Amino acid sequence: MAADDLVELAKRRGFFFGSNGAYGGTAGFYTFGPQGAALKRNLEDAWRDRFTIREGNREIEAPTVMPEPVFEASGHLEGFDDMLVECGECGESHRADHLVEAVTEIEDAEALPGDEVEGLIADNEIACPSCGTPLAGESVEDFNLMFATDIGPGDAQPGYLRPETAQGIFVEFPRLKEYARGNLPFGITQIGAAYRNEISPRGGLLRLREFTQAELEQFIDPEADEPPLDRVRDVEVRLYPATEQEADDGEYVETTVGEAVDEGVIGSPWVGYYLGVAKEWYERVGVDLDRFRFRQHLAGERAHYAADCWDAESEVDGDWIEIAGFSYRSDYDLSKHGEHGDGAFTVFKRYDEPKTVERAAVDPDMSVLGPEFGGDAAAVAEALEALAERDPDAFDAETVSVDVNGETRDVDVDVAGFAIEETTESGEHITPHVVEPSFGVGRTVQTLLAHAYREDEVDGEARTYLSVEPEIAPQDAAVFPLVTNDDRLVDLADRVASDLRAAGLAVAYDDSGSIGRRYRRQDEVGTPFCVTVDRDGIEGDAPDTVTVRERDSAAQVRLPADELAAELAALRAGESFDVLLDRYETVETDVETN
Amino acid sequence: MAADDLVELAKRRGFFFGSNGAYGGTAGFYTFGPQGAALKRNLEDAWRDRFTIREGNREIEAPTVMPEPVFEASGHLEGFDDMLVECGECGESHRADHLVEAVTEIEDAEALPGDEVEGLIADNEIACPSCGTPLAGESVEDFNLMFATDIGPGDAQPGYLRPETAQGIFVEFPRLKEYARGNLPFGITQIGAAYRNEISPRGGLLRLREFTQAELEQFIDPEADEPPLDRVRDVEVRLYPATEQEADDGEYVETTVGEAVDEGVIGSPWVGYYLGVAKEWYERVGVDLDRFRFRQHLAGERAHYAADCWDAESEVDGDWIEIAGFSYRSDYDLSKHGEHGDGAFTVFKRYDEPKTVERAAVDPDMSVLGPEFGGDAAAVAEALEALAERDPDAFDAETVSVDVNGETRDVDVDVAGFAIEETTESGEHITPHVVEPSFGVGRTVQTLLAHAYREDEVDGEARTYLSVEPEIAPQDAAVFPLVTNDDRLVDLADRVASDLRAAGLAVAYDDSGSIGRRYRRQDEVGTPFCVTVDRDGIEGDAPDTVTVRERDSAAQVRLPADELAAELAALRAGESFDVLLDRYETVETDVETN
Repeated sequence: MAADDLVELAKRRGFFFGSNGAYGGTAGFYTFGPQGAALKRNLEDAWRDRFTIREGNREIEAPTVMPEPVFEASGHLEGFDDMLVECGECGESHRADHLVEAVTEIEDAEALPGDEVEGLIADNEIACPSCGTPLAGESVEDFNLMFATDIGPGDAQPGYLRPETAQGIFVEFPRLKEYARGNLPFGITQIGAAYRNEISPRGGLLRLREFTQAELEQFIDPEADEPPLDRVRDVEVRLYPATEQEADDGEYVETTVGEAVDEGVIGSPWVGYYLGVAKEWYERVGVDLDRFRFRQHLAGERAHYAADCWDAESEVDGDWIEIAGFSYRSDYDLSKHGEHGDGAFTVFKRYDEPKTVERAAVDPDMSVLGPEFGGDAAAVAEALEALAERDPDAFDAETVSVDVNGETRDVDVDVAGFAIEETTESGEHITPHVVEPSFGVGRTVQTLLAHAYREDEVDGEARTYLSVEPEIAPQDAAVFPLVTNDDRLVDLADRVASDLRAAGLAVAYDDSGSIGRRYRRQDEVGTPFCVTVDRDGIEGDAPDTVTVRERDSAAQVRLPADELAAELAALRAGESFDVLLDRYETVETDVETN
Repeated sequence: MAADDLVELAKRRGFFFGSNGAYGGTAGFYTFGPQGAALKRNLEDAWRDRFTIREGNREIEAPTVMPEPVFEASGHLEGFDDMLVECGECGESHRADHLVEAVTEIEDAEALPGDEVEGLIADNEIACPSCGTPLAGESVEDFNLMFATDIGPGDAQPGYLRPETAQGIFVEFPRLKEYARGNLPFGITQIGAAYRNEISPRGGLLRLREFTQAELEQFIDPEADEPPLDRVRDVEVRLYPATEQEADDGEYVETTVGEAVDEGVIGSPWVGYYLGVAKEWYERVGVDLDRFRFRQHLAGERAHYAADCWDAESEVDGDWIEIAGFSYRSDYDLSKHGEHGDGAFTVFKRYDEPKTVERAAVDPDMSVLGPEFGGDAAAVAEALEALAERDPDAFDAETVSVDVNGETRDVDVDVAGFAIEETTESGEHITPHVVEPSFGVGRTVQTLLAHAYREDEVDGEARTYLSVEPEIAPQDAAVFPLVTNDDRLVDLADRVASDLRAAGLAVAYDDSGSIGRRYRRQDEVGTPFCVTVDRDGIEGDAPDTVTVRERDSAAQVRLPADELAAELAALRAGESFDVLLDRYETVETDVETN
């Protein structure tokens, strides 16, 4: 299905749509309608189940507005820019690097200096995509992508909407490590809004100005902590390593997580572990694995501090889109906050046994140095101290020389007071490394809709349906009274819907139009099971029965109404509909063409 | 417990703490730590279960950043202000109305004009609470509480962080009504962040600059739609009506929802219905009903369009705090967006039978009016049309007079072309009314912690614990291996924890310190059940067993490890621990003082 058709279906069926339509729309902002919000929430719950609960990690919830010093430390204030060129004629803003990439062989124009991009715009006679006016001569500027605001009245403090949820975790590390009682490794997750004031938002959920991330920051001791790799060693993955991307006839590497780590295709075992966990999770939530791959970042794509970095990518309408990133971020984040912030962004790592450490030290006799070097005496003492640490052997001679203010000063070794001291240390403060799996929730929603879209025929009638997993589907079930002019049917349908809701199931109720039409409505939003209350079900003295129809196969069974909630709960948890086909009476499906 | 102690406990135990401590803190922003985020999420899930799923309502998720025209329409741009006075000496900002209320008998200083408040500050010699400098002479200004930002580069559009989640629902009404296929009543919910740039944020979660709301907008036809009041008719409620608040010896009215609506104490049956639903829900999530009431807004508190308005209030540390509001908002919200926005903020209400309507109309002969009135002819025709609608009897005479531009113009009735036309109408466009239950999630979290805090003695040792409901507790259970130097115990404990997590339960694992100490840690964060793996459980050939301890009673049972997940799930869903005490072997509790 084409991307535009998907966006149209998403709007019509209540998945998502551009926000503020009554006020002309606001580019880059989407609202999740009833179906989309439910599907997105189910997806987030499945992520939480896998990456937080089952991993024994902990989730936090930090504010979306953060003060400026946080982003001074993280580097976003200085470097979180895109290249902006504005049309002098129509005033429209464009990504200068994208314009250049579209008409040249250059793949990463963002890495070029601004004036070079200006030159390329002129040389290639690039015109404004909106009005066609040549852009030659327009300046290319760095545009910071953070939304700015003011916190408080009067002496307001500058603040920004966070460009990623991760900073809300990093900045609270001193407290979070206390909750972990100082022990590594531990993982903190967060699911929440992030904001980027994109120059050119793209259609659908692909490049929004407000979007949802699900991020895990795994804090580890790089020298001691190993991931539980055996759990995912045999998980099969399709990798697209940097070497293959750069080769003329590059191919995917179909392998297992264990092999890829053993052979060094995946550089970090921690990254490998999470690729395996993610692959299994994507399968569980319904990503089509024939349209899925892990692509390694090319050297130029990676941040300087990132040792290894892979993206999860899905194919949507012919394009590969990034839906998650897995990055080994070293100690970059905590080191930066340790430098800028006031708090311990380290953990104390206790040695197995206390260590005796030899340390060269000086204790200069200032009553000698003072008269001899006057105002430079303190500087000479400092230089001696530095030399002792750097080159203790220099103190083997009778005099030792240091450079102070460009002059060489000689000091008697006895006056320097040189000695090797032994100290006992029980441990050391280390800055944990960070492994970061970071998921785009909206892009995953868009992927699921694209991969779940189906067209077929049932009883000679064309239909479209969404084959989403029951765990992820917006509604767990729909309930229909076959007709509305029979109180007994309507009462039972009401009771069935109400019982299912009381059991925590999300239920749609529909009593309008033919049964066939009601099935189609639910098929289009991916409701996996439709429950119909008909006259056959309330006849005689036997307990009331209802029919349940499975979405993809359109197969139906009849079962007692009071067994319905438990069966639907089991189906939601992953049980196959075949179990019901075996257990209960099957129903001919001609009813749906009524 | 004093409010400060609660905030301190919340910080120490990972419920919530002031954000960005490493950068000096940011007033009005709190981060939910692992315990708090889990408790908050459980509370939100319980709200969703009750107010969305069980009511058959639908939830959406709208952006937090919205463009300016939305708030022009809603009135927030013009009127969402607090009274600001800034100290000329130290620069600190204060709520002028609060300063005045603190030293006078005035209860609602916000309703006074700014210059009057300036006068009261001078007359009462109010000084800056921060530095003691007199504030007389400082100006009192309206400070808009919305956080402002710019959307997009270059020709940026002004935007604001939404001050309430509701606007994200109202503004999309034209589309949301389509999803409801145009049928009233329907309810839309949203749980999400809202922002108010408070002049003076208060401690804890009570007045934050970023906070979470759970709101339901129930759209109804005021002439036709009735709530299902019978469902909550017998729910007992403690009401504090406006009349009682104004009386000298005002008292609570202890009554039922049905009686209160029948007797008109609660003005709107829809508001009454949701008060009943909310009362039951607060009980379910663990609010102490002896410290809870519904307080009616006084006439001066209500917005002009709100017909009836009640707050749910809880008592925390001697103060009554608003934790939810229930408001009958009439057609105010949709009318405003209908006036300002471009979209149908109405629904088409079909009559039971088409109606024949008589309508007076004119069809003036312009070939006569033109020569007679020149440039005023069109205005005369318009005035005739307006007159026909307003007063058709005026056309009974031979000539009819209208005022145009201050002059009386006489027109021959034949020239006016007056006639009564009959038209058939199948229905009419009506603007739905809105009933809005609006919950503060953070304030409810703070209430639950305050109401759940307990101190007692177990086996002669003092302890503190949080008696939160299992459905709401941050962890469902904790798992302890009794000792760590026995691989069989550790393996079983690992397996038990992993099985529980696979069953979707949030489980803490703790193998550090004495069992007694581990119990205390879990008691303090409200974990309802602790599972201990000990040697007795793995002896012999019988299936492995573990002990389960209930938090409040400290009672313990021993049960087979493979029955644990199902039992804990049942306990979480509301089953009493007494069932386990009956079903399984009880264990003496002396183990916990080991």
